[in-house]
Amino acid sequence: MKLAELAERLRCELRGDGTIEVRAVRSLEEAGPGDVAFLANPRYASQAATTKASAIIVPADAGDLPCATLRTANPYLAFAEVLGLFHVPRQPPPGIHPTAVVAADARIAEPASIGAYAVIGDGVEIGAGATIHPHVTIYPGVRIGRSFTAHAGVVVREDVVIGDRVVLHSGVVLGADGFGFAPTPQGAVKIPQTGNVVVEDDVEIGANTTVDRATLGATMIRRGAKLDNLVMVGHNCEVGAHSFLAAQVGLAGSTKIGRGVQMGGQAGAAGHLTIGDGVQVVAQSGVPNSVPAGRIVGGYPAMEVTRWRRISAALLRLPELLQRVRRLERTVAGRSTPDDRGGD
Amino acid sequence: MKLAELAERLRCELRGDGTIEVRAVRSLEEAGPGDVAFLANPRYASQAATTKASAIIVPADAGDLPCATLRTANPYLAFAEVLGLFHVPRQPPPGIHPTAVVAADARIAEPASIGAYAVIGDGVEIGAGATIHPHVTIYPGVRIGRSFTAHAGVVVREDVVIGDRVVLHSGVVLGADGFGFAPTPQGAVKIPQTGNVVVEDDVEIGANTTVDRATLGATMIRRGAKLDNLVMVGHNCEVGAHSFLAAQVGLAGSTKIGRGVQMGGQAGAAGHLTIGDGVQVVAQSGVPNSVPAGRIVGGYPAMEVTRWRRISAALLRLPELLQRVRRLERTVAGRSTPDDRGGD
Amino acid sequence: MKLAELAERLRCELRGDGTIEVRAVRSLEEAGPGDVAFLANPRYASQAATTKASAIIVPADAGDLPCATLRTANPYLAFAEVLGLFHVPRQPPPGIHPTAVVAADARIAEPASIGAYAVIGDGVEIGAGATIHPHVTIYPGVRIGRSFTAHAGVVVREDVVIGDRVVLHSGVVLGADGFGFAPTPQGAVKIPQTGNVVVEDDVEIGANTTVDRATLGATMIRRGAKLDNLVMVGHNCEVGAHSFLAAQVGLAGSTKIGRGVQMGGQAGAAGHLTIGDGVQVVAQSGVPNSVPAGRIVGGYPAMEVTRWRRISAALLRLPELLQRVRRLERTVAGRSTPDDRGGD
Repeated sequence: MKLAELAERLRCELRGDGTIEVRAVRSLEEAGPGDVAFLANPRYASQAATTKASAIIVPADAGDLPCATLRTANPYLAFAEVLGLFHVPRQPPPGIHPTAVVAADARIAEPASIGAYAVIGDGVEIGAGATIHPHVTIYPGVRIGRSFTAHAGVVVREDVVIGDRVVLHSGVVLGADGFGFAPTPQGAVKIPQTGNVVVEDDVEIGANTTVDRATLGATMIRRGAKLDNLVMVGHNCEVGAHSFLAAQVGLAGSTKIGRGVQMGGQAGAAGHLTIGDGVQVVAQSGVPNSVPAGRIVGGYPAMEVTRWRRISAALLRLPELLQRVRRLERTVAGRSTPDDRGGD
Repeated sequence: MKLAELAERLRCELRGDGTIEVRAVRSLEEAGPGDVAFLANPRYASQAATTKASAIIVPADAGDLPCATLRTANPYLAFAEVLGLFHVPRQPPPGIHPTAVVAADARIAEPASIGAYAVIGDGVEIGAGATIHPHVTIYPGVRIGRSFTAHAGVVVREDVVIGDRVVLHSGVVLGADGFGFAPTPQGAVKIPQTGNVVVEDDVEIGANTTVDRATLGATMIRRGAKLDNLVMVGHNCEVGAHSFLAAQVGLAGSTKIGRGVQMGGQAGAAGHLTIGDGVQVVAQSGVPNSVPAGRIVGGYPAMEVTRWRRISAALLRLPELLQRVRRLERTVAGRSTPDDRGGD
Repeated sequence: MKLAELAERLRCELRGDGTIEVRAVRSLEEAGPGDVAFLANPRYASQAATTKASAIIVPADAGDLPCATLRTANPYLAFAEVLGLFHVPRQPPPGIHPTAVVAADARIAEPASIGAYAVIGDGVEIGAGATIHPHVTIYPGVRIGRSFTAHAGVVVREDVVIGDRVVLHSGVVLGADGFGFAPTPQGAVKIPQTGNVVVEDDVEIGANTTVDRATLGATMIRRGAKLDNLVMVGHNCEVGAHSFLAAQVGLAGSTKIGRGVQMGGQAGAAGHLTIGDGVQVVAQSGVPNSVPAGRIVGGYPAMEVTRWRRISAALLRLPELLQRVRRLERTVAGRSTPDDRGGD
């Protein structure tokens, strides 16, 4: 494809020779002539200065570079699109593999690709365009929308409801029993987890992430939410539309995450909280209380991030502060009565 | 069922009209006429005040509510029981699915439900009443008690021993090799993990949790312990009877957790520790040393929780404290020799 | 085996009766006559003093013990070797199980053991000596070296490249899509993850660990690296040769870990960092910035560990420090103008 055509398809401003032929997308380091590369993170600016790529997708206001540039207000979007243009993903063959065990009353709309040893339970409904890889288990009563993708080893428990264009990576478990027990003197008694999980449209869930079914009602993953790998969403939680949970995040039961929330890796939230729309939680933070919309919080326990940074900075000076107080105490004690002397 | 009968079955004190017919259990928000709801957490008291439920299970000392109440000293237990009364879980059909691969010398007591593509290895023994969902793999030499439940995708490695009424959720891996290597100048040499895992009666283990086999001897999960999702139990650990490990907890190798211990989500314990009976560990804490029985610990490194809370509170005032010390230094310096002045 | 012969095989110095017959390896607590035990961690020295073992493998400089000792500079290595001598692991039968679905053009060198329901995709190449347990899914285009072991439920996504003697435990997912999305006003657009994962020789990866495929290029796990359970390696990361990542460690995207790095359990590193050769990261730490080679870092945010320990120690005295400052303020205020008084 000629660079000029590519620029048009990506809705980018082209600076450079539009007749250059481009054939692949590569990283700044690995790119050579005929390749398009990508620069959005300033950390990699020095690689851009020496890249052998024929062209680079850059932010609209990027400085001059030694090769052609494709400029755009949203370089990540242009990058996503150019990868889609040049990368042809492997597609499993259409049809139902002869080893798949599909219940007689399951309804799978065509076209569909159902892999080897997939197990589809009684009464399951799956919309058109599904790609179900080997060893996926769909328990009875599950309802799934159009263009569903489930990678090898996914488990969807009974009565879970899934919207359109949902992607589940390998090892995802949707609808395992929530962690609920009634303590008694003879040991804990299991509280039946009678609800389900509802996953709305355009949700993507990363490898080995678990979303537990509700005790009553539904654990909700709202439209457009993206969950990374090894995330835990407890029973009766709600993850708001277009929220992002990075890897290893944990949400205890009944916590409600608003719309457009971003939680960094390994962050956790206690149960029964409300985390407002647009909240950002710094990686590894612990959120013990509800957070109003729009806040950026960090630390443990999580607080307004500017405050937490100030405290973290002060903390670095704490050993020195101890010495300064000791020195003050000596100075003051030299001129005061013994009663005033602080201990050490 | 009439409310009076329900109260009797649940051993609750009924306040209200015992002739009301109840048909389902729903949350306070979703309940309508004919529904029983549940209130134990005071956070939801306002929902109870406006619920349309016909009756609510409440603690014995709850205030008056606008509907009938079922009062009990253990509302969680009554809630567990009422869910069991009204919820009929889906049960897979009895018998061994024709696609299951069961070793000729495996012994599976009847009745049993073995799902599609389950793989049961040589010499495995499974007690009566097992429900093994599709794609479960039981390696050779495993011994399992009565009323076993393993959800789709569970893996039980060779020679693991499992008691009665154990529930394993999808993705659980019991008996993977412990993380043991001998460092050498040529790289790490694997230390064979020759022990196993022993899971006693009435244990429930959450989705994608891993319990590693011992180097020698057994990694122990004692009677009645409950592990949530994505927990890691290292080789040669022991989790005491009736202990609770919340999601994403991690135990490094050879740590012994006592009876009735509770660890909050994402908490971790170092290796070779002893955590005494009844200890409570706050979520996200890090436990670097052994903890005597009965303590409540939190923070990182974990300490007595009251002390940790005091320190956390003091931490919030640290930036202000720095300013106060600076001010003191100036005040004192104004009346003292230059040598006494603290730096800033 | 006679103790003298065992000492020779393990290249240990024998102190004691070389004619003793030994038949098994057991822990210090469980060992009896005829057993070899092992002592490296001083925590267990008291158990060594009372063990009934016939011999103990100990460090070269260990004190006298009440039984024979096998002394070596690397007791962990001798322990690994003695376990290998006395423990015969269960081996699945050779050959391809009739239920395995192997693509017509997949090439699997002999000997190989391919378990029930394994699925091997188009064009896959696997070197001699593979042991692939039941329910493993190898997507198309994967290339694997010699002596590969994959436990039940492993998933290797398309085009992943794996070296020789690699061990993958159950539930490992190699090559799931990295977590990359371009934000737009209409919601996040997926950035195709077009790269792969390359795992070099002698790597072992623990149960339910996930290593995501690169956006472009490869996520690299270098020679001899060992990853414990439930670890998350983000897209485009590189884990250096002979590095150790303990359980539940998380690496955000594009972070490069040097050679011989050790990260403790539940530690995390932000994205786009460089962590130098030989760095040690304390358990549960959070690494927000790059770390030069050779450093030992801890805390959150992670810093030089000696500094962090000093700060942690000072932190314990913070409530007391607040009181001392208050006392100082009162003392000084008693002799100064009201303007100087610090607030409380």
